[in-house]
Amino acid sequence: MRRALELAALGAGRTSPNPLVGAVVLDAQGQLVGEGYHAKAGTPHAEVHALAQAGERARGGTLVVTLEPCCHHGRTPPCSTAVIAAGITRVVVAMGDPNPQVAGGGIAQLRAAGLTVISGVCEAEARELNRAFVHRITTGRPLGLLKWAMSLDGRTALSNGASQWISGPLARAWVHQLRSQCDAVIVGGGTLRTDDPLLTSRGQRTPEPLRVVLSRSLQLPEHAQLWDTTLAPTLVAHGPEAPAAANAQLDDLCSNHPGLERLELPCCSPSALLEALAQRGCNQVLWECGPELAAAAIIEGCVQQVAAVIAPKLLGGTPARTPLGELGLQSMDQVHTWPAQRLQQLGPDLLWSLKALG
Amino acid sequence: MRRALELAALGAGRTSPNPLVGAVVLDAQGQLVGEGYHAKAGTPHAEVHALAQAGERARGGTLVVTLEPCCHHGRTPPCSTAVIAAGITRVVVAMGDPNPQVAGGGIAQLRAAGLTVISGVCEAEARELNRAFVHRITTGRPLGLLKWAMSLDGRTALSNGASQWISGPLARAWVHQLRSQCDAVIVGGGTLRTDDPLLTSRGQRTPEPLRVVLSRSLQLPEHAQLWDTTLAPTLVAHGPEAPAAANAQLDDLCSNHPGLERLELPCCSPSALLEALAQRGCNQVLWECGPELAAAAIIEGCVQQVAAVIAPKLLGGTPARTPLGELGLQSMDQVHTWPAQRLQQLGPDLLWSLKALG
Repeated sequence: MRRALELAALGAGRTSPNPLVGAVVLDAQGQLVGEGYHAKAGTPHAEVHALAQAGERARGGTLVVTLEPCCHHGRTPPCSTAVIAAGITRVVVAMGDPNPQVAGGGIAQLRAAGLTVISGVCEAEARELNRAFVHRITTGRPLGLLKWAMSLDGRTALSNGASQWISGPLARAWVHQLRSQCDAVIVGGGTLRTDDPLLTSRGQRTPEPLRVVLSRSLQLPEHAQLWDTTLAPTLVAHGPEAPAAANAQLDDLCSNHPGLERLELPCCSPSALLEALAQRGCNQVLWECGPELAAAAIIEGCVQQVAAVIAPKLLGGTPARTPLGELGLQSMDQVHTWPAQRLQQLGPDLLWSLKALG
Repeated sequence: MRRALELAALGAGRTSPNPLVGAVVLDAQGQLVGEGYHAKAGTPHAEVHALAQAGERARGGTLVVTLEPCCHHGRTPPCSTAVIAAGITRVVVAMGDPNPQVAGGGIAQLRAAGLTVISGVCEAEARELNRAFVHRITTGRPLGLLKWAMSLDGRTALSNGASQWISGPLARAWVHQLRSQCDAVIVGGGTLRTDDPLLTSRGQRTPEPLRVVLSRSLQLPEHAQLWDTTLAPTLVAHGPEAPAAANAQLDDLCSNHPGLERLELPCCSPSALLEALAQRGCNQVLWECGPELAAAAIIEGCVQQVAAVIAPKLLGGTPARTPLGELGLQSMDQVHTWPAQRLQQLGPDLLWSLKALG
């Protein structure tokens, strides 16, 4: 199972809306005869790869797989049928598939066909690996990561707005890698106007994550790196309250930039955006926005992990930008301690990430 | 010399205005026959302790000492004379004494008496150990440490001012220990009014560090923990511009609280305060003040080390308190990277300390 989990992790950042899955096949004597992992939605599942590699040697053997085999026709045929057809007699599963189209049905089908199924092996590790997928399936929203870079005195820019660069090259490379693990990267209109960011993984993910601008006012610049969609797709999301003139300007923008897409949400909120992104198959998104949108995302439960890069610098400045806007907290009793997840040096900078409870 | 440095460190926080000094005596055969360290200003120096322990066995032996022996009559007689009288023939010294009353005079006296003197052994370690003393002697100001506790989003209080407690018990215990290494702890009037702090080492240092309030307006509360000087001394420092009425109120306050002291500075600034504290023999002070005073202290070069305790919490709030006020920086090129000195977990919190260059 540890090997199967390693295999599963190889697909990280490329399987959405599907989960990460790894599988190994042992022959009747317990020899490893096949390995596979799910590499990309629409391509064969892990079990199919592993069974194909094992061929006839799978007969009478064991399949070890990190997630319950599917039993439904999606873009590929059900795996349960393939497992049975391959002559496997024993299946070891880490966790059930929370997808309501499966939800125990795969295991039931295997048992009905006379196979022995052992479930729950390394379940905690498997759940952690597919935390984003499980979160989307159970909540209807992608898992939200929030990231910022700040000075040791908690500033994300000087008083005059200058912010390039607070963190060093290693920390910025880490951000590119983080983006490669996400299906979408979200900023607000303010960040777009101030920073004109590129928001790509610098080629570490193919395709690049969807770049999303969530804007209430639709006060969008005529020129922005995000409007060039040759490197990566861009989506502008807004609510029904966007002014008509701005709406018309966005139409113009979209006709001038064929790859640029617009999306009207039922309301302009972080949760409405995430629900729409979940429907598009995003398992995990990265908030790279300014303080107001970040605070709104936290308040609406759209942030499951916070990662702060802390640079050994002091920026000062009373009106200088800070990472978070108003959270509406009235007493220190309301302030939660977030469990720390990871502490790492990135060159001169420090990365500290915290995980929301629940 | 390593042993002598260890001995020297035993006096940490109690020798001001004197430096930390450790000494060992080896007899003519190289056997360790005496050890000593300077424990408190006004008491015998390290060499005297070590020579007394060695007694007659010092004759023909070697003295290893972390700082050049003094050659002047202070509160105790000169050590150079004692070393010569004890019959020591060889002296190994880590660093010269930068005090202009010594400044090579001790070593010269020993050499003139026919002793062999080897200098510069473990000099870097010795200089680090006495960084505060050397800083005061060479700059006329005590070494300044600045410390704050903040949430991961860089806040030192909620929007409504609540701040107890951002950091956990281990981090607060570390602050008490830090205070025990300092000769004075400084706050501004704002912190006094908002937090009514106690500012002691909770008994880890005897006497407790001097508690200092630097106030321009002298708008002081009638009741404050700092006015009770049974635990620790308190000094109120202000400039000549303090309003007459407030001056009179401070006089009343002082007559009601006999241990409370006032000090009028030539001007109400961090550097004027530090010069006055250096004259009182402070080698090292701790800034525990609010953002404006902290920023002023940094701008005036009164901070040589910043230590931030970072709690895994998010406070948010646009008008919430942040660690530093305006530093007057106009571009990211003006922002320095401070060399990191120490990174440590304190329970759930993180301690990161940075050291100013130079």
